[in-house]
Amino acid sequence: MPPLALYWGRMSLTEQMTQLARQAKEACRTLARLTPAEKNTALGAMAAALERQAGALKSANARDLETGAEMGLSAAMLDRLKLDETRIAGMARGLREVAALPDPVGRVLEERTRPNGLRLRKVSTPIGVIVIIYESRPNVTADAAGLCFKSGNATILRGGKEALHSNRLIAQLMVEAAGEALPAFPPHAIQVVPTADRQAIPELLALTAYIDLCMPRGGEGLIRAVAQCSKVPVIKHYKGVCHVFVDRNADPEMAERIVLNAKCQRPGVCNAMETLLVDRPIAPQFLPRIARLLAPHHVELRADSAAAAILRADAAAPPCRVKDATDADFFTEHNDYILNVRVVDDVQQAAQHIAHYGSAHSDAIVTANPDTARTFLQDVDSAAVYWNASTRFTDGGQFGMGAEIGISTDKVGVRGPMGLEELTSYKWIGLGDGQVRA
Amino acid sequence: MPPLALYWGRMSLTEQMTQLARQAKEACRTLARLTPAEKNTALGAMAAALERQAGALKSANARDLETGAEMGLSAAMLDRLKLDETRIAGMARGLREVAALPDPVGRVLEERTRPNGLRLRKVSTPIGVIVIIYESRPNVTADAAGLCFKSGNATILRGGKEALHSNRLIAQLMVEAAGEALPAFPPHAIQVVPTADRQAIPELLALTAYIDLCMPRGGEGLIRAVAQCSKVPVIKHYKGVCHVFVDRNADPEMAERIVLNAKCQRPGVCNAMETLLVDRPIAPQFLPRIARLLAPHHVELRADSAAAAILRADAAAPPCRVKDATDADFFTEHNDYILNVRVVDDVQQAAQHIAHYGSAHSDAIVTANPDTARTFLQDVDSAAVYWNASTRFTDGGQFGMGAEIGISTDKVGVRGPMGLEELTSYKWIGLGDGQVRA
Repeated sequence: MPPLALYWGRMSLTEQMTQLARQAKEACRTLARLTPAEKNTALGAMAAALERQAGALKSANARDLETGAEMGLSAAMLDRLKLDETRIAGMARGLREVAALPDPVGRVLEERTRPNGLRLRKVSTPIGVIVIIYESRPNVTADAAGLCFKSGNATILRGGKEALHSNRLIAQLMVEAAGEALPAFPPHAIQVVPTADRQAIPELLALTAYIDLCMPRGGEGLIRAVAQCSKVPVIKHYKGVCHVFVDRNADPEMAERIVLNAKCQRPGVCNAMETLLVDRPIAPQFLPRIARLLAPHHVELRADSAAAAILRADAAAPPCRVKDATDADFFTEHNDYILNVRVVDDVQQAAQHIAHYGSAHSDAIVTANPDTARTFLQDVDSAAVYWNASTRFTDGGQFGMGAEIGISTDKVGVRGPMGLEELTSYKWIGLGDGQVRA
Repeated sequence: MPPLALYWGRMSLTEQMTQLARQAKEACRTLARLTPAEKNTALGAMAAALERQAGALKSANARDLETGAEMGLSAAMLDRLKLDETRIAGMARGLREVAALPDPVGRVLEERTRPNGLRLRKVSTPIGVIVIIYESRPNVTADAAGLCFKSGNATILRGGKEALHSNRLIAQLMVEAAGEALPAFPPHAIQVVPTADRQAIPELLALTAYIDLCMPRGGEGLIRAVAQCSKVPVIKHYKGVCHVFVDRNADPEMAERIVLNAKCQRPGVCNAMETLLVDRPIAPQFLPRIARLLAPHHVELRADSAAAAILRADAAAPPCRVKDATDADFFTEHNDYILNVRVVDDVQQAAQHIAHYGSAHSDAIVTANPDTARTFLQDVDSAAVYWNASTRFTDGGQFGMGAEIGISTDKVGVRGPMGLEELTSYKWIGLGDGQVRA
């Protein structure tokens, strides 16, 4: 076989992507037949290989870091790109944790016997071929490939072009290790798109005959571009504009605890609060308390006129910086120590605000009134809605799913955190003794 | 308000479709709040209105039949377009049957309590706004709108242009009746695309902010065109190329019964068998039996060379017409008294044939050998796989789901028959007492 670069060089991009996708589809049939023990053996071998080859991984990564620096990536981006001992150990640990989780394939989800004696079983199956599109962090390669493999899916991975050497080596080590540990392992179960050509994505996502699902992970721009061009199903969340509504019947201490946690525990993630909605009757008391609470974290408040008036009238100088919120602020995932604040008339107006400005990700109400809570939980149509708890819980680990491959705000297919079970489809198996339809 | 035609006349197609979609989205919030009793009252009123207005429906339908005849529709197409007393009564009965089914919204699908005391409930919810695209039969309007309404979804219906008068009146009667019976009924819960402009479909299916799902029903051409242009999720099956594999260990009488049923009980539907795969060791005995069995139904056999040789060597003149199958035949949903026949080496080759030529709809094995059955049920990745039963069972009614809105061969979201439960999504509800993330 000629060297890879030469080999690919002779094919058009369409041919390259079709070959990747066809190989993945072929791998699926073998993957679906592997036993849980076989898959776990392979995952263990993959983890060991990553640890053993830490030196080679760091060298490949050094090339990427060099290119990244030449490309002018920010220090934060370069940090995300970096693979050090800790992160390599983290990838290995992640693969072993996935091996320890229950196998998600072959679960009987439902069973019924029809009057004619036909027994119907709804059984979980792999989805098939999954394309993962992501940005800088090369550890996503191991995490995503491990979760997809355990759920019997073939993966085609497309990371950032700045991480290509790291991503290719991670995938190669995983495939080689699995192949040695498990002769039945199909080598095309895990593939990295071997070109940085941007056109590769629409080419790949047009191949509906081979590809079953695409999961983009990253900024809203990337996800919108993928959703716009894809002809295969996409599971995604565009952004996390999460709300906490503090109702007139809220316990003020509980409300403070939840607001602080939802905003400041980790402001850069999708389930952090972006907008605080405060019920009008309690706003004059509650808002100054919140300003004092958030001041040590240097949170900037972007307030609507009612909230701004209260905050600015506070007897003490306002301890947080207060700006006037624009309409755009309420649509924005700041991912930072910035909090939109609005005073609303009641729970209905809170729900309306969330329907208009929200991203259907995670929204919470704080109240001691069960009727108000019920209205909120019913009316707010988000993947996760909380009563007296922080929005920060929307997470596969926190939900007890084990590792998570992403979060969905879609209505078709999975909604909310996606763990192993959420990476499966199902089929109906009909067991008869000669039944025919009358 | 100006008459509808004038009103619409002033808007661009994009504006018209955006308005339809936005109205549907607004209707959703009210729909999600209706109680099961309220929905059932409205369904009963809709059924009564269709019966009461049978005369008006037949008049509107007569206009469509006239246009259809002018358009040169075939007699079969005109028959599908026709609304007579029986079909009107059928629509009313369908709506009452849907009312009698359990409400699919608000079911607790899963419940777990986390170590921190946070209680998580996965609860079924409506999907939101569903666009249904279909061909001639106007009764689909009532059936689809009724199922979507009961599951709390708003519908935008786009039937064939030849059925526009019938479809509009059906929807109008349903909306008026529901509004009289139930003041909270949102009038935009059921809307018919009021133009025959083909461009309306891509315009509508680009509105990802308002539309949650599209379900096209009809021929493969229609479905491919919809899937190709849609930016919203599409649930579909392109075609039903269903197989029966008769294994060497099959009970011959059972195999005959299943083959006859799968091919001839209703050959024009998607779960009818298109291809018979016969295991090589039994082909010389089994194929002539099948030819004699299918002869009274004038089934044409399109046989691969091995099967053709056996059939043509039959001592008696072959009782069925035997043609040489082309490769294209094996990909084709004939929907007719035509059956592809192929001799295969074993269950593995049968599964390979199905993976290559099949449509992942419904496939069956007939065998008395449980190991062979297990291989088939495992390897064949179709929405429904049967052991010793006819493929004809893939149907919402036969599965005990009540009415069915369609069948999906997709891997993301619903697979197989889609009843009321399959028209729902879910959300996670977190019930806490002040939990924050550590």
